[in-house]
Amino acid sequence: MKVFEKYFDDFIGYLIILNVIHQILISGYSLSDNLLTLSENFILFSFGIFVFEVIFRIFKERKFSTLLLIDIIVIFNYLFISVFDLRIFRIFRAYSIFSQLRVLLPTNTLLKTIWKQRLSILGTQIVVFSLLLIFSVVIHFLEKDLQPEAFGNILDSMWYGIATLTTVGYGDVTPVSDLGKLISSFAMFLGIAMFALPAAILASAYYEDIQKRNFLVSLEAITEINLFSNLPIGAITKINSKLEPLVLPAKQVIFKKGDIADALYIIEFGSVQVEIETPVVLGSGDYFGETGLISQAERNATISVLEEAKLLKLSKESLDELLEEYPALFEDLKRSAADRTG
Amino acid sequence: MKVFEKYFDDFIGYLIILNVIHQILISGYSLSDNLLTLSENFILFSFGIFVFEVIFRIFKERKFSTLLLIDIIVIFNYLFISVFDLRIFRIFRAYSIFSQLRVLLPTNTLLKTIWKQRLSILGTQIVVFSLLLIFSVVIHFLEKDLQPEAFGNILDSMWYGIATLTTVGYGDVTPVSDLGKLISSFAMFLGIAMFALPAAILASAYYEDIQKRNFLVSLEAITEINLFSNLPIGAITKINSKLEPLVLPAKQVIFKKGDIADALYIIEFGSVQVEIETPVVLGSGDYFGETGLISQAERNATISVLEEAKLLKLSKESLDELLEEYPALFEDLKRSAADRTG
Amino acid sequence: MKVFEKYFDDFIGYLIILNVIHQILISGYSLSDNLLTLSENFILFSFGIFVFEVIFRIFKERKFSTLLLIDIIVIFNYLFISVFDLRIFRIFRAYSIFSQLRVLLPTNTLLKTIWKQRLSILGTQIVVFSLLLIFSVVIHFLEKDLQPEAFGNILDSMWYGIATLTTVGYGDVTPVSDLGKLISSFAMFLGIAMFALPAAILASAYYEDIQKRNFLVSLEAITEINLFSNLPIGAITKINSKLEPLVLPAKQVIFKKGDIADALYIIEFGSVQVEIETPVVLGSGDYFGETGLISQAERNATISVLEEAKLLKLSKESLDELLEEYPALFEDLKRSAADRTG
Amino acid sequence: MKVFEKYFDDFIGYLIILNVIHQILISGYSLSDNLLTLSENFILFSFGIFVFEVIFRIFKERKFSTLLLIDIIVIFNYLFISVFDLRIFRIFRAYSIFSQLRVLLPTNTLLKTIWKQRLSILGTQIVVFSLLLIFSVVIHFLEKDLQPEAFGNILDSMWYGIATLTTVGYGDVTPVSDLGKLISSFAMFLGIAMFALPAAILASAYYEDIQKRNFLVSLEAITEINLFSNLPIGAITKINSKLEPLVLPAKQVIFKKGDIADALYIIEFGSVQVEIETPVVLGSGDYFGETGLISQAERNATISVLEEAKLLKLSKESLDELLEEYPALFEDLKRSAADRTG
Repeated sequence: MKVFEKYFDDFIGYLIILNVIHQILISGYSLSDNLLTLSENFILFSFGIFVFEVIFRIFKERKFSTLLLIDIIVIFNYLFISVFDLRIFRIFRAYSIFSQLRVLLPTNTLLKTIWKQRLSILGTQIVVFSLLLIFSVVIHFLEKDLQPEAFGNILDSMWYGIATLTTVGYGDVTPVSDLGKLISSFAMFLGIAMFALPAAILASAYYEDIQKRNFLVSLEAITEINLFSNLPIGAITKINSKLEPLVLPAKQVIFKKGDIADALYIIEFGSVQVEIETPVVLGSGDYFGETGLISQAERNATISVLEEAKLLKLSKESLDELLEEYPALFEDLKRSAADRTG
Repeated sequence: MKVFEKYFDDFIGYLIILNVIHQILISGYSLSDNLLTLSENFILFSFGIFVFEVIFRIFKERKFSTLLLIDIIVIFNYLFISVFDLRIFRIFRAYSIFSQLRVLLPTNTLLKTIWKQRLSILGTQIVVFSLLLIFSVVIHFLEKDLQPEAFGNILDSMWYGIATLTTVGYGDVTPVSDLGKLISSFAMFLGIAMFALPAAILASAYYEDIQKRNFLVSLEAITEINLFSNLPIGAITKINSKLEPLVLPAKQVIFKKGDIADALYIIEFGSVQVEIETPVVLGSGDYFGETGLISQAERNATISVLEEAKLLKLSKESLDELLEEYPALFEDLKRSAADRTG
Repeated sequence: MKVFEKYFDDFIGYLIILNVIHQILISGYSLSDNLLTLSENFILFSFGIFVFEVIFRIFKERKFSTLLLIDIIVIFNYLFISVFDLRIFRIFRAYSIFSQLRVLLPTNTLLKTIWKQRLSILGTQIVVFSLLLIFSVVIHFLEKDLQPEAFGNILDSMWYGIATLTTVGYGDVTPVSDLGKLISSFAMFLGIAMFALPAAILASAYYEDIQKRNFLVSLEAITEINLFSNLPIGAITKINSKLEPLVLPAKQVIFKKGDIADALYIIEFGSVQVEIETPVVLGSGDYFGETGLISQAERNATISVLEEAKLLKLSKESLDELLEEYPALFEDLKRSAADRTG
Repeated sequence: MKVFEKYFDDFIGYLIILNVIHQILISGYSLSDNLLTLSENFILFSFGIFVFEVIFRIFKERKFSTLLLIDIIVIFNYLFISVFDLRIFRIFRAYSIFSQLRVLLPTNTLLKTIWKQRLSILGTQIVVFSLLLIFSVVIHFLEKDLQPEAFGNILDSMWYGIATLTTVGYGDVTPVSDLGKLISSFAMFLGIAMFALPAAILASAYYEDIQKRNFLVSLEAITEINLFSNLPIGAITKINSKLEPLVLPAKQVIFKKGDIADALYIIEFGSVQVEIETPVVLGSGDYFGETGLISQAERNATISVLEEAKLLKLSKESLDELLEEYPALFEDLKRSAADRTG
């Protein structure tokens, strides 16, 4: 059932994209009779499926969401109004279906950053909007007698004002008075600063988010290591604080077969290659060399860097220090280590 | 009286915003007689209130400010000149009234950053302005004979120059000579760099400000903790240096009911939930688990992360170290701890 | 043979650049007979060399690349189709030939950063493209009856939509309805945010890359020091962790002739001058003072900073600590030190 | 003599600015006879002074600079050619005269950052220029038959290409073919990325420069402290590494009169107030409390933060540790301390 739902979702996603392409291509063209029939049948078929899917979702999820509302409006419009073709708005549904694809993952992070910074960005827009109002009123005073059709009221002046402050500059309207040009020149300089504000906020916030995510990556990676999976969060944080970052260039050998195993490595980014008969590639979030933490055996394979990688190294020494300092926290670990080596 | 002032201020704020909307909507339209009377009465009523408010402020604040001056000019213009409708400029007063609203708080931080960087930004504008002058003179030489109406004097050339350097590009004037186009092409590339400069300055400065603010948050948070409220700044700084940052994903359990209490936590950002009968949510600047610092009792509730949170942890161990190392600094604390546990 | 290949490659690079210049200059002009003959001979000669070079590369490299494909298409087009002059596309080959020039090195780093962030940037473009689609459909609905030639179908509306969202704003088409202008105003504000997104991603990523590269620089520098060249990666990382960063202003004396030598210095950036009879300048990646690590002899020359420099200092003390803590790792080093001093 | 030179330089600076304003205001206007005479006399007078100044500089500096060359060309042009009015180019001289003014100091830092990053920025421009070439050739192919006057040769196409890639978008020329519009749409998206590149480079570099400058500030501050002024660079770096950063909010009391003095403070930014009868304000680079390092006397004044400040604290303890660890380095200091306390 789960598998069927997944395939059905993907099918809906592709059908929405096809509908968007269809909507774009037919708009404004008069089709031949054959094509028109085909086109109408496609719409009919699509909406049949869409109606079914929306009903299915209502029954299954039993909770309301903006996304669902949009989809219901699109279908309602098709069935009862149909003046405008609203299929384009189902694109949000397609986005939510495909949001787990690899290419959209960074987009999700980015949208989250924007969401977290929404107040800051809204704040800059309030400042900008106030400047726009003042600029539009002033330019309206200066140009209303010279160009009544373009600057005769403040709302019309705002059209020029926005195009200027955002540096779009259509040029369909431009001031003719000298003072109007002077004031507009100031507005253009302000336009540059406007670009700087959201860039500054987002660059700062995004950098912090990346730093934090890297931190969470290592925390999650530790939790996934068998040895550590049952430890309390306190212990995992202690381990995290003992990780030693290593940034290694490609082709660097990390350890050779036969070396004494005395550390575990977690890959933060990049990839490494285990050089056994059929080489295995490990990537971000993977770990290797965990046997080195329990017993100082020999490495049974050479491992080298494939793409420039950042590794987090946990040496046996560091772990032993933790075991001694916080015996209560690591009790489980000690027992399991004893089991293995014993 | 305080409460009345607050309501009166808010009322003035809304009245200003209504006046701005009114000014925008009536400009350039001829109203019907009824609407005109209504409109004029609204203006009359507003200015009645405005005059009263300005007089009230002068008596109350008894000090001069740019904001007050603007408001007086707006009122003076209405009473004695009234050629232009200057009500839009009272928007600064509305901004100052509402500046403590949550949506405007980040704007305040941002405006402070801009204010601190005003010299740097002004500096870049001086460079840009010099480039503009040189570019305008050169393009004036090249185009004055071909397009005397647009490039006949340097001031006119500057209108084209600004629109080009800021990448607004109205296109109402463009060079026709080959050399003019070549020079303009260079100017367009320079335009790109111009955008980069303030963005670079503000992004750097804003990032530093955020970092510093986070630092101050934790300092303030420590000061607000009852246990520490009487400590000298030296002691608080020491405590601050012992805080251990933890970034935890949502749903992570921080400690369970019955665990041994051995640390206090301060929330830098995000939120946590105290899982008692009616769950309590704690947010940025709050702290919890302070009993763990005095006596190693048991936790009396489970606390888990609600939204990804950054906590600052102060363990009993760290505090004990401080007590030993700097006995003089922490004298008060020791006594109060003795009182509680004794 | 190697030297000949290098010269031949450079020759091909210059020939491609000459061809690009030639293509630009002759396009659209009718040449005199003499010049035409000259021009055709130049093309004939160039393609003679190009065919030879491509065959040579196929035989030598014996592996397929996109670059090779482009070059083959350009030649194939010249020999058999020749409707368009595709020589401009050989510019990629010229870039690959000259990519090791000093002026292009930072470009390579930048292109790598862009390449690593391609998914994030593509992700923002998907968001932007979705917004573009929705905006274009809405503006098409609003303007199609008023301006059928410009907004009659969605594809045409997209032309206006892109010019607006990217803030290019040609102004060849602008909305005339009030609602159309309102929606366009929102689109212009979105345009500003669009600029912020890639800037935020690239600024964050580029800053991280620079930090990482600095890290790798020091790792590589350590590997190149004779004393350390045979150490395992573990030892080199330990040394790296003991490096102490020093940022020194120009003209600062680092040590004087006769001082006791007790540290080695690696230059991360900037330059220093060895003040002997014919002064020697050392730059980024160079190191000096290595004798100080083995024996505490006297410095035999004064060294001072030429351009503000960041040095990484490894003191004899730190090295001695490492030798004691990890005797196994540094066995080779100890022996060689013993050899020298013994 | 020195003072006279300073006044003379300032006079020249103001005269150049007056000449630039004069040049802008008279260009393209026909003046009345009286004004014309005045204007010509002003030019004559100015060039009299300029010639004298340039000769004076040649004799005094006796070395060649680009700046001097520009000034000589401007004068030579006035004396012997005088077709164009080149006075605007003397603005560089005015900039060099006033470059030590407070408002231009950050500009100098910024220009240095740009200068250091010139290769990276040039590199991005090479990439952009290559894209421009390819885009211009393709759009030339697609539009040359439809709009021969605007896209008939590649150089003309480049005019459109630059205006599009830099998002200036004059709109004097736009493609009419569907393929031309499609290709241009891609170019506009590339334009956005172009803005991101220099912003990313400069933001990263500027942030690093600020960090480094802060580092140098503290190093310089240490050197200026009387106690430390004779120490070797090694000792100063050691001291620097012991500094403890404190970020304090306004009004925070740092220490009170009568407290035991046990630390010295250096102000990195912000300001503090010494609360004696006529309060003294100390700012960035100043230090206070140095008596606390020699003898544990009592503070003789209360000092509190005036504007949010970052202090660097050096405690007596830390200094004592250094004295013990590196007795040789701090020999001078010990002796002077002994002198004072003894």
